[in-house]
Amino acid sequence: MTRVAVVGATGAVGSTVLRILEERDFPLDELVPFASPRSEGKLLRFRGQELRVRTLDGRWFEGIDIALVSAGGAVAREFLPPAAAAGTVCVDNSSAFRMDPAVPLVVPEINPEAAKDHRGILANTNCTAMTALMPLAPLHREFGLRFLVTSSYQSVSGAGLKGVRELAEQIEKLHGQEEDLGHPDPDALPRGDVFGRTIAFNVVPRAERFDPEGSGFTTEEIKMGNEIRKVLDLPGLRAVATAVRVPVAVGHGVSIYARFDRPVGPEAVRRVLSGAPGVRVADDEVLVGRIRQGDDDHALALFACGDNLRKGAALNLVQIAELLVSGR
Amino acid sequence: MTRVAVVGATGAVGSTVLRILEERDFPLDELVPFASPRSEGKLLRFRGQELRVRTLDGRWFEGIDIALVSAGGAVAREFLPPAAAAGTVCVDNSSAFRMDPAVPLVVPEINPEAAKDHRGILANTNCTAMTALMPLAPLHREFGLRFLVTSSYQSVSGAGLKGVRELAEQIEKLHGQEEDLGHPDPDALPRGDVFGRTIAFNVVPRAERFDPEGSGFTTEEIKMGNEIRKVLDLPGLRAVATAVRVPVAVGHGVSIYARFDRPVGPEAVRRVLSGAPGVRVADDEVLVGRIRQGDDDHALALFACGDNLRKGAALNLVQIAELLVSGR
Repeated sequence: MTRVAVVGATGAVGSTVLRILEERDFPLDELVPFASPRSEGKLLRFRGQELRVRTLDGRWFEGIDIALVSAGGAVAREFLPPAAAAGTVCVDNSSAFRMDPAVPLVVPEINPEAAKDHRGILANTNCTAMTALMPLAPLHREFGLRFLVTSSYQSVSGAGLKGVRELAEQIEKLHGQEEDLGHPDPDALPRGDVFGRTIAFNVVPRAERFDPEGSGFTTEEIKMGNEIRKVLDLPGLRAVATAVRVPVAVGHGVSIYARFDRPVGPEAVRRVLSGAPGVRVADDEVLVGRIRQGDDDHALALFACGDNLRKGAALNLVQIAELLVSGR
Repeated sequence: MTRVAVVGATGAVGSTVLRILEERDFPLDELVPFASPRSEGKLLRFRGQELRVRTLDGRWFEGIDIALVSAGGAVAREFLPPAAAAGTVCVDNSSAFRMDPAVPLVVPEINPEAAKDHRGILANTNCTAMTALMPLAPLHREFGLRFLVTSSYQSVSGAGLKGVRELAEQIEKLHGQEEDLGHPDPDALPRGDVFGRTIAFNVVPRAERFDPEGSGFTTEEIKMGNEIRKVLDLPGLRAVATAVRVPVAVGHGVSIYARFDRPVGPEAVRRVLSGAPGVRVADDEVLVGRIRQGDDDHALALFACGDNLRKGAALNLVQIAELLVSGR
């Protein structure tokens, strides 16, 4: 008898988790959806049944074996530690616990051993870091990653359904004026709560908040380096990230420049990546291409794209849960 | 008596050249617009008059002192050398002559001396290289540029008005489906002649053609390094570029990672850039921000944006012409 909770079940990631649990025929006996009080009582379809959405309370985890959680950092910090203490294994999509040394940061194709037999809280990597990690991990094993420069092209759904709605509303307002958008009247440009600046027909070189310590990097950029260091177990890796929001609904792209300890050539790279799990030209996987030799034979340039809701979040949550279930 | 021709006068860059010549009250006595046979006889407004568009022929340059040309490489290669031989100074926006050692590649704020007293053909830099050069040139003078990684966010108008139309048409077709764009039916996605792949609600990590020599870089990416090397007179500069098209009408962004010979700090960088001509938070200039220390004190990360039609093309053509006229 396995009871699985999906916390944040009505959100962009949570609703994708439900779909993926169905698609992959995840071995569960009961699914319990949780969401914020706004969605309480809402009905969600799962395997042909209607499930009523519940809200979290102090005993939400009773009887729950595994919780797949995508409800933001504040909810995670409040509701996961007591659940974990009571024996519910929590796989969290937020950044709340990712850098906690006691919490494994897991990408099933890269470090499945970190999830195996772990109890308590496990963390899912950031969706952009995931997209970069999928090709970088097999390349690191072969060539030794030494230095990394990344620039991202992040879709609005990375900020949740409200990000997608903000893009759609602004497109509605500006559509038909595309040819004038070189010199718009700044006061007439739509602004929204999610991205601040206009995101339709624009790029915004800022994702999330600025580093409170004043480095000028955003929290999204800092996560990129920190999470890649943790997943690859490379604490000394030099990494410089720039995170940019683009007017795309779903899917994150990353332009990667990487230097390695050993010489790398595009041919060897294609060979390594063609054998790497989760990296391919196919649904659900991270697409890698534009493989080029960098400024010398130790350097590479490549472009990776991933679905930020599926592999970047929901699919990885389910894959971690599969590791947990298979270890039972 | 100064007679100025604008070649490609009905295009995205050419029409911007006309507007900028008016705005800057360029000292000319007669303006002669040229375009492809498709536009022959069309009337263009300039300084309150209607000018009839002509087509190029074997004697088009007779009586023309300066020609501002944005009509593509093939037209430039056919029509500019005879004009230059006959004494017409041609400032060309295409890539046809940029790497010719006899042709100066000019950014007026950076190397105006290259234009002064030059006759024959002068070349305008690529719009993305221009956006990166505006902050990099003053930083190079102060700190010594050694290594460069760039990832661009290039608007559709970089491919001309047809690029803007293709984006607008695809937005029309897909609008209302934003929330489904994570998993679209690939056969239902609009494709166009300009970008090949869908550009609306997407990014396309390919601008222009692939290197015929098989390096995997595109011609746009190769230009980036070559033109920066030529304008800064740094033939040995290591530079790795990735060029990506984004669904933006006008304006190119560039994420820049740069290493220098001497230590650079964000404070010193802000000081240098605040005194640099053409770099500011204002119309027509290149906007620079997100200045961050890179992986050590010799490395920087920053983000630059420029108007690819104005400073990236038309304004720079006019500024070069102003240098030519002032030297008379």
